[in-house]
Amino acid sequence: MRPSAPARARHPPRRAAAAAALLALAAAPGAWPEDREAGVARPAADPARDPGIHGFCRDSLARQREIETLLLALPDPERLRTHSRILTRKPHVAGTPENDEVARYIRDRFREAGLKTEIRSYPVYLGYVKEAELEQVEPVAARLAGPEDEARGSDDPWLRLNWNAYSPSGDVTREVVYANYGRAEDFDALDALGAPVKGRIALVRYFRGYRGGKALQAERRGAAGIIFYSDPADDGYVRGDVWPDGPWGPESHVQRGAAVFDFLVPGDPLTPGWPSRPGGRRIRPEESEILPRIPSIPISWRDARVILEHLGGPAVPEGWQGGLPLTYHVGPGPSRVRLRIAASFETRPIHNVVGVLRGREEPGRQVLLTNHHDAWVYGAVDPVSGTAAMLELARAAGELARRGLPPRRTLVFVNVDAEEMTLTGSTEWGEQNREALTERAVACLNVDSAASGGSFQPAAVPSLRRLISEALRDVRDPRTGLDLRAATVLARDAERFRTLYNEATETARADDIRFDIPGSGSDYTVFLNHLGIPAADLGFEGAYGVYHSIYDSHEWVARFGDPGFLYHATAVRVWGLLAYRLANADILPFEESPYPSDVLRYLAEIEAQGRRPGAVPDLADLKAALGEWAAAAADLDARIDAAAASPRPPARRLRAANAALLAAERALLSRPGLPGRPWFRHLIYAPYPSYAAETLPGLREAIDEGDAARARAQAAALGAAIRARAATARRAAAALPAAPPRPAGPGDSRSIVPTAPAAGERDSR
Amino acid sequence: MRPSAPARARHPPRRAAAAAALLALAAAPGAWPEDREAGVARPAADPARDPGIHGFCRDSLARQREIETLLLALPDPERLRTHSRILTRKPHVAGTPENDEVARYIRDRFREAGLKTEIRSYPVYLGYVKEAELEQVEPVAARLAGPEDEARGSDDPWLRLNWNAYSPSGDVTREVVYANYGRAEDFDALDALGAPVKGRIALVRYFRGYRGGKALQAERRGAAGIIFYSDPADDGYVRGDVWPDGPWGPESHVQRGAAVFDFLVPGDPLTPGWPSRPGGRRIRPEESEILPRIPSIPISWRDARVILEHLGGPAVPEGWQGGLPLTYHVGPGPSRVRLRIAASFETRPIHNVVGVLRGREEPGRQVLLTNHHDAWVYGAVDPVSGTAAMLELARAAGELARRGLPPRRTLVFVNVDAEEMTLTGSTEWGEQNREALTERAVACLNVDSAASGGSFQPAAVPSLRRLISEALRDVRDPRTGLDLRAATVLARDAERFRTLYNEATETARADDIRFDIPGSGSDYTVFLNHLGIPAADLGFEGAYGVYHSIYDSHEWVARFGDPGFLYHATAVRVWGLLAYRLANADILPFEESPYPSDVLRYLAEIEAQGRRPGAVPDLADLKAALGEWAAAAADLDARIDAAAASPRPPARRLRAANAALLAAERALLSRPGLPGRPWFRHLIYAPYPSYAAETLPGLREAIDEGDAARARAQAAALGAAIRARAATARRAAAALPAAPPRPAGPGDSRSIVPTAPAAGERDSR
Repeated sequence: MRPSAPARARHPPRRAAAAAALLALAAAPGAWPEDREAGVARPAADPARDPGIHGFCRDSLARQREIETLLLALPDPERLRTHSRILTRKPHVAGTPENDEVARYIRDRFREAGLKTEIRSYPVYLGYVKEAELEQVEPVAARLAGPEDEARGSDDPWLRLNWNAYSPSGDVTREVVYANYGRAEDFDALDALGAPVKGRIALVRYFRGYRGGKALQAERRGAAGIIFYSDPADDGYVRGDVWPDGPWGPESHVQRGAAVFDFLVPGDPLTPGWPSRPGGRRIRPEESEILPRIPSIPISWRDARVILEHLGGPAVPEGWQGGLPLTYHVGPGPSRVRLRIAASFETRPIHNVVGVLRGREEPGRQVLLTNHHDAWVYGAVDPVSGTAAMLELARAAGELARRGLPPRRTLVFVNVDAEEMTLTGSTEWGEQNREALTERAVACLNVDSAASGGSFQPAAVPSLRRLISEALRDVRDPRTGLDLRAATVLARDAERFRTLYNEATETARADDIRFDIPGSGSDYTVFLNHLGIPAADLGFEGAYGVYHSIYDSHEWVARFGDPGFLYHATAVRVWGLLAYRLANADILPFEESPYPSDVLRYLAEIEAQGRRPGAVPDLADLKAALGEWAAAAADLDARIDAAAASPRPPARRLRAANAALLAAERALLSRPGLPGRPWFRHLIYAPYPSYAAETLPGLREAIDEGDAARARAQAAALGAAIRARAATARRAAAALPAAPPRPAGPGDSRSIVPTAPAAGERDSR
Repeated sequence: MRPSAPARARHPPRRAAAAAALLALAAAPGAWPEDREAGVARPAADPARDPGIHGFCRDSLARQREIETLLLALPDPERLRTHSRILTRKPHVAGTPENDEVARYIRDRFREAGLKTEIRSYPVYLGYVKEAELEQVEPVAARLAGPEDEARGSDDPWLRLNWNAYSPSGDVTREVVYANYGRAEDFDALDALGAPVKGRIALVRYFRGYRGGKALQAERRGAAGIIFYSDPADDGYVRGDVWPDGPWGPESHVQRGAAVFDFLVPGDPLTPGWPSRPGGRRIRPEESEILPRIPSIPISWRDARVILEHLGGPAVPEGWQGGLPLTYHVGPGPSRVRLRIAASFETRPIHNVVGVLRGREEPGRQVLLTNHHDAWVYGAVDPVSGTAAMLELARAAGELARRGLPPRRTLVFVNVDAEEMTLTGSTEWGEQNREALTERAVACLNVDSAASGGSFQPAAVPSLRRLISEALRDVRDPRTGLDLRAATVLARDAERFRTLYNEATETARADDIRFDIPGSGSDYTVFLNHLGIPAADLGFEGAYGVYHSIYDSHEWVARFGDPGFLYHATAVRVWGLLAYRLANADILPFEESPYPSDVLRYLAEIEAQGRRPGAVPDLADLKAALGEWAAAAADLDARIDAAAASPRPPARRLRAANAALLAAERALLSRPGLPGRPWFRHLIYAPYPSYAAETLPGLREAIDEGDAARARAQAAALGAAIRARAATARRAAAALPAAPPRPAGPGDSRSIVPTAPAAGERDSR
């Protein structure tokens, strides 16, 4: 059934034209000739006319289509609804018994599915808050930081407490300054306005950046404390109707979350770079560079309004005005507040659940499927929608194996703990299994929030984009009945909630979906940025105004986020198709050419900015290396395409090609890591403390900081990595038959490369 | 003294960089070497190095500089403050004794100045409202449309009444639909949302269009009534601090104004196209095409909020959400309101005050200086700032004449009545003096609201742009100490209030000021659009949130709009320089080349839109005509430039050149007028019922409506007009000595043409 989707009906698309086109297509007879309800892939009516699947040779195609048809039919929305209900019964913060219970539920489901399952536990340093109080003391006394309205009847502290994990204890009484989104440019503007934050408490609105980055900015500029709040312009009534009438955040909702600097190094703050073991080596907390030194607290706009009504000083600059019914002023004061945090730092065990479905032909090659299970409160979207999807995908995979259709390569379901803290569970597991993963892991497919709505939004390294785009063609969009790729293209610019979490600046080709650049903010980080495993982050987004609040509940999902749980099921289908194509392809289904093309664009951006003339080194050799990579990539892609139309090459050749493809992303790692944050080793992508994913981070930062010598060294390191990557491409190509020459054209499979994607960060924490 | 400008300090420019540059320049020593207080022109230190003034020959320059130096020193801020205080003592609506008193004050000042002064009266049809009531009857009863807070103590109906002139009487009780800005596209969106306005009452926010255009849209779509309100996102607390803490509109402020279709034909609704005379010919009111048929009322956001809080139906599309603290819905209902208007249509006399300062050498050539004196309430900005400026300019002109420096050509000060109704006074006067004006008028320089702030914003036909840009170089900006042209360029994008009244879409060259396209909305309309007299509309704009409300008061101007009345004085200087250059130039100081260049761009816009393929006629001949005009213009401009470096040509030649230049704008008139609204005869510009000034109106509308035959006829008419204009240019050029060839370059005087101006309407009513 199509969802009745009241939230959607009440939030019409921005562009009437796009919506009209979408509806017209959806209503067109024959748009989806097969069963519109089951969500199965569009079957190839005639196998001879099957357009093929990237990475599969002609004689492997029929079996894969059979597997996919079964796979797509298995996900059951009602099972997903049941998982959601059970997993959201209680708040389940990392390190609590309630969350341990969730881990056991996942373990039991994995075992029922037939996965070889174990729980991997790590004792890690967790930053809890016992008491968080905020009071305005001048000019009008008022108690702030009250619990959310739906928590008022409860005595459960996890419901009543509004807290930022890892805030230190503190008790400060200071004037307030309103600092807009708390970005570097916002604090600069405050300095220019004569209202510096130094010695004061910064009132900062959420969004347009990760709260940890805002906290670091405030701390570096000498703030005494930081108050985060959710402005109605960003996730409240300005965006649309609020709970319980709509999906947006009501007046009392509070966004919890860690405010920690894990973009410097994630994982247990006391074991930076190595796994936490009982009795193992630890640094002292005061040695950690990621723990904040000033207290912070999150509040609702209802409470923030009291402060904003009592700020004087200059009216705000353009772009700083929020959605409250008053003229915002920056202060400082006269509002003066007392912020008191009683923190409790404790080392407690966290529990990853790992389920393995062994590959029949290549058990030593692993496709990682990752998600977390800890939440801030109920976490019905974040992460339960993803967890439920993982459980349903595990069941489907087990069912396929029982029917004699196990994967060629091994599927590893990694459901981690304490993602919400410092990406802790995934980081510790990745660090612990560094060598095995480096040797075996084909790719990481992460799903954190699977469905807060119906708009598919992927982030991925460029070599995975074709895989994703192709798979979407074979999954039905429940809302429109179109294939998901078409639905995603049509809906691309039509959704009102865009730019809520991502400062997406990329544009895409008119006929392609939009890919975000992988930044950080979920569990793929250790795999991509530390270990060099190609990664994608997947999910359906919507008008999600209740993020990290008590209102992110089963009821919210059932009413607004995904009525009918159809997008939960669709997420299982997409995730499953990607996993089984990575697992079963004859040739690992990467496409190489988009990668050098994108890197060249990142480089052009850096040159165009040219903020510090003289700091941009000679890039001729780097560009020559990129040219070598592009040439090798074109040859490799042509050979993979040619192989798809041919019989399966000898196993020896495929092994050689796949070994080279497996090594390709590793080639982009820097052995010493990025200057200043060596845990981050990927030279193309890194998370960034401000709003955007960062590209070519080592080179870019050296230039931005005017360090010409470091910039030269980084350019050289990047050139060497690119040449190493070109060599893996040439090795892979050498193992495959040469492609017949063919003319490029509109049907060129490589034309799915977006022409101008740029920064855009996914941050679901 | 520089103004202390509290409003400005509290409303920092949008772009810190621009502001910083501006301040740095302002603070630079030597930026304005002469007396920084007196506002006098930058004197040419060495006459031999004087860059010259467009249209003045070498041997006329010294005398003109002498006149200008005197002229610039004469305006006195304290006299302007006094005029403002006296003229704003009482509400002075057109047709009332209080406004007649204002007319006599103006007459007396003109006479004191030595002008030959007369009052020209016309009996015209005025649409008053006696009672205007609005009540919500469901779901919660509430009386709305209360008086503004500062009117509560008064029993003066002009203070207490919130009204739209020309609203018919009516008493309707209907469901409400929220229609955003009430543009055609807004009503289209309502139809798509299933909430058509037909049979309902439209709640429409002000701005982004003239209220008369909104009323016509609502009426055409079958609305039963229309409620206008001022949303805080447009002119209230979202923009900045509100009165009395700042310049923006407080919660109770109401924008009065006519809601009449005078973009079809302005002036007395019962004498369309001819002057109103006692006992003269009149149509019956029901024959008028400009009188609305459905009642309307303006209210404050405080009252509108009651309705918005009680609208259900779909949440609004992107861009419709205003600044009130609720999610806007379109309805229809459940809010149901009763709108009752008791109108009173009366024929009363209005009084234009006309003062003439006869030109010594060419008394039969007239420079028109226009402004109005009727207001909605006190009208301290609109129009008293302009009226005060006119009185002060008249005094200065009289003083110059007394000192033996009368103008070469005649100056006509035309201070009209009932502009706020249907541009009535200027239209009747223009219609009455059609032949004389056609023969004599050189140009119209209109100033309506002279100073609501410190940002100079002109609209002008292209041939006047160079005159204006040049004059600004010789006037000092009080805020920065820079010359006004530099200050205007620097501040161009830095002001927070941009796009409040103008939907300005033009971009300008980085080094030039921005010119709006002359649309309608003030008294230049009859002169430009009906009589073909080149026109400019001038004024300083600011954070003017109290437009047409009781708060547009002397106190508002003194505190926020123009503390110190320095921009009033600056407006007098700019207006005076332009008038005396038009009056005294040897060759009328037009620049021809920007005109064909802009028209070519308007044509390209129409072609690019191509909404109705097949409706765009063959434009080859039109483009050929434009080419002829451009060639003639280049030759003419070169000859005028060459003349500036030469001795004065013989008087006979100058007479011939000026006669041709005087006729130039007339050539662009259509004899039958525009299809559907023949009063509008100018083929390049026309007002538009929606937000933008319209260019090439006859051709554009024919194409938009898919009328291919009409489009061909309009293209032919346009081509003929352009060829006639090219002929005037050739005639003017033929009378002047040929220019020596010279290379074009960055110093080319014609390079002040903005590269891509586009639509932008000035509407100060």
